[in-house]
Amino acid sequence: MPPATILKFPTSSPADTSPLTRLQEAGFKTKDILGIVGKTEGNGCVNDFSRTLSSHVWDALIPDSAISIFSGGTEGVLSPHITAILQSDKPTGLHAAVRRSRVLEPWEVGSVEHVRYVAASIREKMVEEGIEAGDVQLVLIKCPLLTSERIAAIQATGRKPVTLDTYESMALSRYASAIGIGAALNPTITNTIPQLLSSGDFQTPLASCSSGAELQDCHILILSNTTPPNPSPPSLTRAFNSTMHSGIDFSSLQTLLTKALHPSPPYTKATLLQVFVKAEADPSGLVKGEFRHTMLTDSDLHSTRHARAAVGGLVAGVTGDCAVYVSGGAEGQGPKGGGSLCVVVRWELYR
Amino acid sequence: MPPATILKFPTSSPADTSPLTRLQEAGFKTKDILGIVGKTEGNGCVNDFSRTLSSHVWDALIPDSAISIFSGGTEGVLSPHITAILQSDKPTGLHAAVRRSRVLEPWEVGSVEHVRYVAASIREKMVEEGIEAGDVQLVLIKCPLLTSERIAAIQATGRKPVTLDTYESMALSRYASAIGIGAALNPTITNTIPQLLSSGDFQTPLASCSSGAELQDCHILILSNTTPPNPSPPSLTRAFNSTMHSGIDFSSLQTLLTKALHPSPPYTKATLLQVFVKAEADPSGLVKGEFRHTMLTDSDLHSTRHARAAVGGLVAGVTGDCAVYVSGGAEGQGPKGGGSLCVVVRWELYR
Amino acid sequence: MPPATILKFPTSSPADTSPLTRLQEAGFKTKDILGIVGKTEGNGCVNDFSRTLSSHVWDALIPDSAISIFSGGTEGVLSPHITAILQSDKPTGLHAAVRRSRVLEPWEVGSVEHVRYVAASIREKMVEEGIEAGDVQLVLIKCPLLTSERIAAIQATGRKPVTLDTYESMALSRYASAIGIGAALNPTITNTIPQLLSSGDFQTPLASCSSGAELQDCHILILSNTTPPNPSPPSLTRAFNSTMHSGIDFSSLQTLLTKALHPSPPYTKATLLQVFVKAEADPSGLVKGEFRHTMLTDSDLHSTRHARAAVGGLVAGVTGDCAVYVSGGAEGQGPKGGGSLCVVVRWELYR
Amino acid sequence: MPPATILKFPTSSPADTSPLTRLQEAGFKTKDILGIVGKTEGNGCVNDFSRTLSSHVWDALIPDSAISIFSGGTEGVLSPHITAILQSDKPTGLHAAVRRSRVLEPWEVGSVEHVRYVAASIREKMVEEGIEAGDVQLVLIKCPLLTSERIAAIQATGRKPVTLDTYESMALSRYASAIGIGAALNPTITNTIPQLLSSGDFQTPLASCSSGAELQDCHILILSNTTPPNPSPPSLTRAFNSTMHSGIDFSSLQTLLTKALHPSPPYTKATLLQVFVKAEADPSGLVKGEFRHTMLTDSDLHSTRHARAAVGGLVAGVTGDCAVYVSGGAEGQGPKGGGSLCVVVRWELYR
Repeated sequence: MPPATILKFPTSSPADTSPLTRLQEAGFKTKDILGIVGKTEGNGCVNDFSRTLSSHVWDALIPDSAISIFSGGTEGVLSPHITAILQSDKPTGLHAAVRRSRVLEPWEVGSVEHVRYVAASIREKMVEEGIEAGDVQLVLIKCPLLTSERIAAIQATGRKPVTLDTYESMALSRYASAIGIGAALNPTITNTIPQLLSSGDFQTPLASCSSGAELQDCHILILSNTTPPNPSPPSLTRAFNSTMHSGIDFSSLQTLLTKALHPSPPYTKATLLQVFVKAEADPSGLVKGEFRHTMLTDSDLHSTRHARAAVGGLVAGVTGDCAVYVSGGAEGQGPKGGGSLCVVVRWELYR
Repeated sequence: MPPATILKFPTSSPADTSPLTRLQEAGFKTKDILGIVGKTEGNGCVNDFSRTLSSHVWDALIPDSAISIFSGGTEGVLSPHITAILQSDKPTGLHAAVRRSRVLEPWEVGSVEHVRYVAASIREKMVEEGIEAGDVQLVLIKCPLLTSERIAAIQATGRKPVTLDTYESMALSRYASAIGIGAALNPTITNTIPQLLSSGDFQTPLASCSSGAELQDCHILILSNTTPPNPSPPSLTRAFNSTMHSGIDFSSLQTLLTKALHPSPPYTKATLLQVFVKAEADPSGLVKGEFRHTMLTDSDLHSTRHARAAVGGLVAGVTGDCAVYVSGGAEGQGPKGGGSLCVVVRWELYR
Repeated sequence: MPPATILKFPTSSPADTSPLTRLQEAGFKTKDILGIVGKTEGNGCVNDFSRTLSSHVWDALIPDSAISIFSGGTEGVLSPHITAILQSDKPTGLHAAVRRSRVLEPWEVGSVEHVRYVAASIREKMVEEGIEAGDVQLVLIKCPLLTSERIAAIQATGRKPVTLDTYESMALSRYASAIGIGAALNPTITNTIPQLLSSGDFQTPLASCSSGAELQDCHILILSNTTPPNPSPPSLTRAFNSTMHSGIDFSSLQTLLTKALHPSPPYTKATLLQVFVKAEADPSGLVKGEFRHTMLTDSDLHSTRHARAAVGGLVAGVTGDCAVYVSGGAEGQGPKGGGSLCVVVRWELYR
Repeated sequence: MPPATILKFPTSSPADTSPLTRLQEAGFKTKDILGIVGKTEGNGCVNDFSRTLSSHVWDALIPDSAISIFSGGTEGVLSPHITAILQSDKPTGLHAAVRRSRVLEPWEVGSVEHVRYVAASIREKMVEEGIEAGDVQLVLIKCPLLTSERIAAIQATGRKPVTLDTYESMALSRYASAIGIGAALNPTITNTIPQLLSSGDFQTPLASCSSGAELQDCHILILSNTTPPNPSPPSLTRAFNSTMHSGIDFSSLQTLLTKALHPSPPYTKATLLQVFVKAEADPSGLVKGEFRHTMLTDSDLHSTRHARAAVGGLVAGVTGDCAVYVSGGAEGQGPKGGGSLCVVVRWELYR
């Protein structure tokens, strides 16, 4: 259970692995990499080969035990980048645990089995690394989707896919992953997984799930705070979780930033390292129950692209940082129309 | 030179003219309408027939002397709506002047002639209604674009169109209109129009220009403040101009809102009536010179759609209002990558 | 039961009603119009306001008893146009019957009720005008879809919409209309409507259905051949039905064209008046069970747009005519991956 | 100057290199690969990372002297596949020569230098391998484009890019490559390169050019027929060049197929190996000067995607083969609105 820290680098294309050099310049070795969490510049939907390209080039470089999570879509002012999740040899106040689930069969994607394997994978990892549910600030998951080929493969076995719509399979996969996170952190819901899957009403702000054609298992990253060392180290890395209650929830964003950027004593200086936020079109067709939006009736542009662009505009504007992790499709990952929100900051003793 | 006020209504589709009934319920007559400025839910680009549909239904209802300006594109959290520009029988502190230019021949679109006719149209209107340049807070223009048919028509006369790219013609038309606004408000630049057109370097934050296939002339709306009446009326309508220096210029937005929403004595209450803001992808490929954006290399989604979504997300988040006028393509209408910004508020004596 | 003929005209935009003048120049009066069947240049999907614009301008001009059917999407080489369905005062060999169903409540769209009302509407019309099922060559229907607002309206009544996906509602509405056509022409299937709806396996090559947000009832056009008058008139209009078994079924297309363009004696000259063809992405993900296509995994471009472009390329190439009626989404309107096909020709006595 | 043959394989994704195994099963070694010419399933435009992904995985496998040419966009019925260009140890009747140009500096893309280096590269290769201009049936080129970053790099040197529009840079690069091919095959035009570049009027049906962000040099493949060996070998591979005069030029396509598939004595059997065809939206806005198309006014979908879908529908329909090489953007590669056309067939002695 080594301490963790994060570093963020811009990328010039989905094939750009030059951040590896910059990590080394910053004193890290390749073996320190626990995970690479990136935003790539594709459409973030089914045929987003920018994610596959990034996975391809990065997976060849990082340790076998490390994971990659690439979320497509840098609409609007969002800027392609990667966030490296790194082991530290000094206490940091942050813990990062990573693992993979087993490969999901195509007919499992979005199903009860999907939920169960995700939940079990997370629970095992928490036990293994001694993570308390109450300390978890965010669980990020990259999970599979269904392509036309995988749907045909399911049908060839006589089974029924969760959906025939490849784009919708992304949402169902994310939702199953979110319930899995919920069940890992709160096992009392385990018995109601089938009902939660069919109702669509589950939510937890501790989940950030993204689906893609570039993998068939699930890649899992658990971010949790640890008890700060005593005496206080010169620098502390902390994650703070909150919830966007809608795509325009400026208030929650500001409240969280204010908290995270005003360090507790003895720290006096705070630096924003990364924002992780989920975004979606409110399924009611209304933002905050009031304003008709057109994200769900726009047949030229999928709603996840709309949502990332809008929430990305708000978060980038308010933080002044365009290299934020804004991911589209927040099913189960916060209230409808909103999404999970987590910031990671570094606190330092002296300015 | 009657005083003006504005009222804003949601629309359920581009064909929705029900706001007319609501205007009447609010005590206005159809003849009081000076202009309808709307956001419709198309792509905001060349083949945006939502604008044409709205023009079609509204132009049949409003007075002959009134104008319509429909800007397409309600990406992300933006919400389709119309803003009615209305004559008031009481002093309001706001003045609105509207007129049309003559029809522009296809080969004039984006040219020196375009600039000159816009400038002359605005100047004549300013003289007619006694508007001082210093009082103008925003000039909105709807101007034509080039379709394949219009390009062929130009070529059939042996002339050369400003561009063969229909989407680019939108930008060139907006830029010519912006220079026209600049020349009307500051005639000293009149001699340099050809150079300004070719350099691409002109800018004024007092312009908000939008182009479309639904018209062949230019529709012009001049918003200016007037000396407040004495004694102070119970309610005052005021416009305030500023500039977004980038797509993430939260600071300028907040500063302007703070100013506009903290009324001068004797007023104590302020209500935001509308925000007019222009948005564009920074042509350098970088937001604020620092963050690589992908709006100009995304061949699935034009940059104006990206820009509206992002800036719309910021403005809607910060104001809590999704029915704001965010228009894409800010050529000449502010610094590169930014755009003009104008808020209209109502100040009242007693809360 | 007057004889019918058809005339085809290009349009310069969705708002172009100049074909009305050309109809008059050709000797027809407005009251002769039974229907206007058009291809407009929008995306053919949920937010296609080109259809709404065309409906708006044409519905105001044609007789109350006439119907309009606008199908969006002129991808690739397809050319926007309208086909006027006209009453003739002389025998033509072709019969055209038109009517509207009642307004469908939002929760009926795609349901058993939808099917039943369509079937009943067609049957009543067939009885009224003495049309035999065996003479019918094609039934065209324009039917409603679900927008976010209509889905919310359904949910507000406590009912469950057939889908939460606005784009998918188009397919479900087309499929219900196709079963309705099938049930009207073959009442023995009436008892199995619920099963047919859920299986997705119904098909008839006599159906051509298109859905849109621009209407809430169904517009129905029945094209049938009548016994040719005796003695043979100098000109005869005939419709011929066939089936595209895949999107590349050149063979069926050629066979049908050969038949239709080689007139029976005493006729010696044949002119192609129009081709009506449906197109869709094969749900198996393979064209003809062999070639992987990417229409169902392309999240930037809906499969109906892909399908229209491809089948339009084939039909326009083979006929030399780009103003053909190629409509996307062939659920129930022919074999999977294929679609209904109908050509209308004029035969003349002497060349 | 070894003889060449071609083999075609479907791919399951842009990362699929399984055809390499199938090549080996067919008796070829990796070192026999002269080039891989593939169609990938991205948008075929600037941000098509499917091409980059394919280049990435294939370039690591093929010999250093071999080239890859990936053309994005399998719209409509088109099917992703690769065509392997292979050395044969027996005479085949076909010759294939491959080489790369040097890296083009960003400011050279689309310029006179671009043309000259392409022409010189081809000429050198022709001399080296003894290829006569009259035997050349098609020259395929993959050439670079300009991204926002490359445009900024040009501007940083004080130079002016050929365009500020990344999508347009693809067209300008293709056109320069086409002139380069023309100049290599017909050196008399060398003196007029600047005029040809600015007029836009050059054309040769022997060129098939595709641009992409995945490379900075040009990849060149020259296909030519050789004098058939005597005595006649049991099997002969032949290429035949023609021209599509429009996107619906069914006649030229049929004529060429008829010729290529009716072998000269003593051969009696013919098999279609591949079709290489270029497609584009007619810049006049009309197909064949008659039918208004909407490819150039569709701001949701670039014209190259429209054109590939339509011409792909025609070619796949007529040949019954969806794995054909249809590439979009035919600037200089045939008449306006049309494009180059080449089929490769295998003739055999006995059926």
